[in-house]
Amino acid sequence: MPVRAAVIPAPNAPVQIREYTTPELEPGAALMRTTYSEVCGTDVHLLHGQLPGAPYPLIPGHINVGWLEQVRGPIRDAFGEPLEGGETVTFLDVHETCNNCWYCLVAKATTRCPHRRVYGITYGAEDGLLGGWSELVYLKPGVKILQIPEGLTPEAVIAGGCALPTAFHAVERGQVGLGDHVVVQGSGPVGLMACALSRLAGAQHVTVIGAPESRLDVARRLGADETINIEHTSEQERVDTVRDFLTNGRGADVTIEATGNPLAVPEGMRLTRDAGVYVVVGQYTDAGPVEFNPHHDLNRRHLDVRATWGIDLSHQYTSLQVLARFRDAFEWEAVISGYYMLDQANEALADVEAGRVVKAVICPNGRP
Amino acid sequence: MPVRAAVIPAPNAPVQIREYTTPELEPGAALMRTTYSEVCGTDVHLLHGQLPGAPYPLIPGHINVGWLEQVRGPIRDAFGEPLEGGETVTFLDVHETCNNCWYCLVAKATTRCPHRRVYGITYGAEDGLLGGWSELVYLKPGVKILQIPEGLTPEAVIAGGCALPTAFHAVERGQVGLGDHVVVQGSGPVGLMACALSRLAGAQHVTVIGAPESRLDVARRLGADETINIEHTSEQERVDTVRDFLTNGRGADVTIEATGNPLAVPEGMRLTRDAGVYVVVGQYTDAGPVEFNPHHDLNRRHLDVRATWGIDLSHQYTSLQVLARFRDAFEWEAVISGYYMLDQANEALADVEAGRVVKAVICPNGRP
Amino acid sequence: MPVRAAVIPAPNAPVQIREYTTPELEPGAALMRTTYSEVCGTDVHLLHGQLPGAPYPLIPGHINVGWLEQVRGPIRDAFGEPLEGGETVTFLDVHETCNNCWYCLVAKATTRCPHRRVYGITYGAEDGLLGGWSELVYLKPGVKILQIPEGLTPEAVIAGGCALPTAFHAVERGQVGLGDHVVVQGSGPVGLMACALSRLAGAQHVTVIGAPESRLDVARRLGADETINIEHTSEQERVDTVRDFLTNGRGADVTIEATGNPLAVPEGMRLTRDAGVYVVVGQYTDAGPVEFNPHHDLNRRHLDVRATWGIDLSHQYTSLQVLARFRDAFEWEAVISGYYMLDQANEALADVEAGRVVKAVICPNGRP
Amino acid sequence: MPVRAAVIPAPNAPVQIREYTTPELEPGAALMRTTYSEVCGTDVHLLHGQLPGAPYPLIPGHINVGWLEQVRGPIRDAFGEPLEGGETVTFLDVHETCNNCWYCLVAKATTRCPHRRVYGITYGAEDGLLGGWSELVYLKPGVKILQIPEGLTPEAVIAGGCALPTAFHAVERGQVGLGDHVVVQGSGPVGLMACALSRLAGAQHVTVIGAPESRLDVARRLGADETINIEHTSEQERVDTVRDFLTNGRGADVTIEATGNPLAVPEGMRLTRDAGVYVVVGQYTDAGPVEFNPHHDLNRRHLDVRATWGIDLSHQYTSLQVLARFRDAFEWEAVISGYYMLDQANEALADVEAGRVVKAVICPNGRP
Repeated sequence: MPVRAAVIPAPNAPVQIREYTTPELEPGAALMRTTYSEVCGTDVHLLHGQLPGAPYPLIPGHINVGWLEQVRGPIRDAFGEPLEGGETVTFLDVHETCNNCWYCLVAKATTRCPHRRVYGITYGAEDGLLGGWSELVYLKPGVKILQIPEGLTPEAVIAGGCALPTAFHAVERGQVGLGDHVVVQGSGPVGLMACALSRLAGAQHVTVIGAPESRLDVARRLGADETINIEHTSEQERVDTVRDFLTNGRGADVTIEATGNPLAVPEGMRLTRDAGVYVVVGQYTDAGPVEFNPHHDLNRRHLDVRATWGIDLSHQYTSLQVLARFRDAFEWEAVISGYYMLDQANEALADVEAGRVVKAVICPNGRP
Repeated sequence: MPVRAAVIPAPNAPVQIREYTTPELEPGAALMRTTYSEVCGTDVHLLHGQLPGAPYPLIPGHINVGWLEQVRGPIRDAFGEPLEGGETVTFLDVHETCNNCWYCLVAKATTRCPHRRVYGITYGAEDGLLGGWSELVYLKPGVKILQIPEGLTPEAVIAGGCALPTAFHAVERGQVGLGDHVVVQGSGPVGLMACALSRLAGAQHVTVIGAPESRLDVARRLGADETINIEHTSEQERVDTVRDFLTNGRGADVTIEATGNPLAVPEGMRLTRDAGVYVVVGQYTDAGPVEFNPHHDLNRRHLDVRATWGIDLSHQYTSLQVLARFRDAFEWEAVISGYYMLDQANEALADVEAGRVVKAVICPNGRP
Repeated sequence: MPVRAAVIPAPNAPVQIREYTTPELEPGAALMRTTYSEVCGTDVHLLHGQLPGAPYPLIPGHINVGWLEQVRGPIRDAFGEPLEGGETVTFLDVHETCNNCWYCLVAKATTRCPHRRVYGITYGAEDGLLGGWSELVYLKPGVKILQIPEGLTPEAVIAGGCALPTAFHAVERGQVGLGDHVVVQGSGPVGLMACALSRLAGAQHVTVIGAPESRLDVARRLGADETINIEHTSEQERVDTVRDFLTNGRGADVTIEATGNPLAVPEGMRLTRDAGVYVVVGQYTDAGPVEFNPHHDLNRRHLDVRATWGIDLSHQYTSLQVLARFRDAFEWEAVISGYYMLDQANEALADVEAGRVVKAVICPNGRP
Repeated sequence: MPVRAAVIPAPNAPVQIREYTTPELEPGAALMRTTYSEVCGTDVHLLHGQLPGAPYPLIPGHINVGWLEQVRGPIRDAFGEPLEGGETVTFLDVHETCNNCWYCLVAKATTRCPHRRVYGITYGAEDGLLGGWSELVYLKPGVKILQIPEGLTPEAVIAGGCALPTAFHAVERGQVGLGDHVVVQGSGPVGLMACALSRLAGAQHVTVIGAPESRLDVARRLGADETINIEHTSEQERVDTVRDFLTNGRGADVTIEATGNPLAVPEGMRLTRDAGVYVVVGQYTDAGPVEFNPHHDLNRRHLDVRATWGIDLSHQYTSLQVLARFRDAFEWEAVISGYYMLDQANEALADVEAGRVVKAVICPNGRP
């Protein structure tokens, strides 16, 4: 049986359905039949060739959920539990973190390991079925496989998607806790998950700044106390609103940037109170430079700016546990705007790019 | 006997010598006869009216050393030890930190207390003899007075000056420690003290970037392993030198900005390794905006940027203790380029502004 | 009109009602008419003379809520807002933190300031109406007064009582956050508040160990996922239960001790996972020594033990804000077992000492 | 050619010289010809069977220096640099840290990974030439090999031995820095290295408590400002000396325990100032229980106790770099009391056990 996958053939070329032969498993490898993948902002960047060095043709889809159709054992999950096949799983898209370099072993900054490869982003179709927009995904030996915690549906897992661990990393790095006034810049999946996780972490008040109104509606359903529509306000109005009305004139204790827009960065500094924390997580691609004033925006504020790159297994594992524990706290699936079959991938990408949807979910094997 | 003081009458007006009557002491106050004050970069900013709200006429001189000529007791030093007069002292220039506001009590960010006033900067001559370019300084009740540790000369104390606690704060905030590759941007007093303190804190390697060569000579005498002359290099050359030659291609573990030049800030981000720490301490006045690239300079680096404002008593006290403990580690007085009498204040300011000297020391009562 | 207060005349002597004259206010002072005070475990220790140096006769009651019947202004709350009288308030029991010693200014460990005095504990009746078991409390100049946030009833505030900021300090010091398995040792007010705050901070799972069953019932109403009755289990059974069943064999990520029983401390080390955090907050009085094994209990576990003394204003202010924000998350008043008039103080103390009640509230001016 | 190794045949049996055949190398493995190994306190424990589960017969020697006599390449050092044979190297004794368990990946507490094995301690002679008291050591594939930094002699490396990275871990965990008063309990190799590293990290004052006087002499040569002989003082005298004379009545900012004696632990709590840090690193084996008072020793002090288990590569790598950078700061080799041939191993063990020497170095291939 051929395996169908949606492929970006080259930068700015529309996605095509291609067929591949089912791969032979090397020892320690597995095949996952994909229940859901997602369309992430990164996939739009990939479509437009905005990630330098990305290998085309490319099967997108870095965070996925499915079940193990075949294993060539003995094979174990990320924590050493044996897997026999049949388990519902997700896996860490990051692979080949080397554990053999200065970044991994001395700096303990594994997300900056130069050897890491990422499913659906830095692996191309010629490397194998290494992206989730495919009926089957080839899990290489050593891929960190996570079993889905009891009580979580595949829909909830893909609602979290890659945004959930990314936002978890940001919330952890910002040390959001009881009593904190939090501002989240951005109402895409990462911003929405940062909102939900800040709420769960006991934030005193969460403001989400974004657009359009439909996404802000979702923000409110995921715990936002206030939302500010970026389309109807100026930077000064947003800063004034946050500082004067919401936080006693001081600004946010913690601001989390999740926009990808360089202009958000100086604004985020201004939204944050003196001696506060500003987490920058959304500047994943080069969208150009921006101006700021080091005296007013940085030094005088005694600001902590914590830029945040990538995720490791702890973020994915713990955020999944949190999702399972608090599965009834919110209607997490509210971030899913629609389900798309493999041959609707171009439509899904267009809907995400236009902001018509919050999250588009890909169903490589049809809607379960 | 009239008291002579050097006064900036108004922005951009030359310093004048004015005479004041010896003030009456209120209970808990003291008079310090000034042995040494200094000319700090801030004083040049004050001369040019670059600190919004500074009150003119103004007696500059925020960090000073002298002896208590008169006390109206009972009066105690910053730690509650009784003072009788005659003691050699310095004092924290910051006064009126309120201990009664959200910043002081909840955020524990006392350097951002809105009520703080600073000797020689935010107090003007009409408020009293509240700057060190004066034969006598009036120490208001509650001013934090520090006795000079045994073995320290007034020359050593003024060699440290305001730069020493400022640099101590920066080094503390950057958590410089054993094994760290440190880059200091700037070879003025703060940069030089950051160099010396990083060396004492066990840094593996300290590079100072600055100019002119005479200051870099001092840097090497204060522990710098390497210096880079900013006048003979491009940004790219400096980044390449730091990254390729000095730190195995990675960049500094900790970079400390002490320049006041906005252009230094994006360069500093680029000098720092991924997942490193960048302390911004030198942007004390508004010198305009600068461009940077949030993706390349911040997010992708997983950088920690720690902007640092002001000092509190812990920085001044502990850095004085460190100076006393390590008084023989370096020839600290190498930062002092010359001693100036009160009526040479304009010359001192001009020499500092032109970069002809590292530190100009003011001797309000003549050279001891 | 005389002022009635409940007084412990001497160690182990029953509480008496005494009458005092209404004090004259010095400038900056205020009189609070007490709505509620509480009976804390400390008050039982005071009754039995177990706090060395406590001054008798003594009016107990350190955390209280009431309204400002009289002010001798101008007078301001802890954050500088003017007070006119009539406001519903509580205040920080700790007073005279000196802000003029090495602990306050250099170590920034204000709860260890040797000058601090505490209402209802280290002030005696001869110092004035400085405890809450009194119709009126004299608020000395400089006492940190907090206005009650909107929406909070006096009942909710006293339900929090001194346990809420104490537990807040413990939870903050333990850095309880998303994903953490938390064990709380003790089901008195501090343990119950630590349970509620851990739940609000996003703990994955909260286990409360205590007794009797009625307190464990309250724990479950305040967010505990599991409870273990200490009366029906051995130490080994508790350790096994926590390690084997609740946390995958590892032990708690964070354990919070809130018992006052020395035996709890080595047990708490054993309840905590390797490289976990153990917060010891309950050992407020000397209840004797205990044995532990430094190799097995400490070193081999790579444990962080964070002992926690007292509170400062940040803990009281922020925990009140949290209480107001999450007033509907739990039925906080469930910790209040009964209201007692001033002349029932002996009964209240006896009920607390016997563990017949969780919290006994004192109503100095009758039940509102 | 047979390979000679010194072997502990069984608990409490004298060391024997045994001969082994030169092992065949599997791909990725190497053979190191041992220049120096050492006798660590752990080896005395191994001799007496005090490490549960240690496999006999056993070749001791966990930290070693030598040169690569044979490699079966391609083989790389710990940071990915290719090795060709001939290099002077040391290696991390800890092997098989799994990078596949909750401790490694989520807690990021790799020294508590249950899968880790240790050369010379948890590997026995039947597992291969996996200890340093052998002419050759077999470096299994994946062993983290470190090339010796330029300028370091094998003598300096073995002077550091396993004590240097262990002490580095302790100093790092205690965050020893500028201005800190440090007390080190113990004058064995770990205590002495903790002394030297604290001095290099800018400690204000380092006191070493230990015995006999010959070790305290070495402590002074490695930077101790004061030493206290434990044989001529009572606990109370030591506490009084530290608190009253050396640190203004407060106690140490950071105390580091490196004794292995349980009695040191409560004493160390008492040596530390309120709100200080106590690092417990020396309780490596079970030497029985000890009594302490949780109220006085822990809670009332607001103490941070940081127990410290094992090392990872960062500690070994960075401490070697520090040793190379500061090779002239001290006469590091002063800790080496004598060199012993393989057949003098019993004598070396006896000398260490009796405290007649500080460090005994083993020369498996004769003295170079």
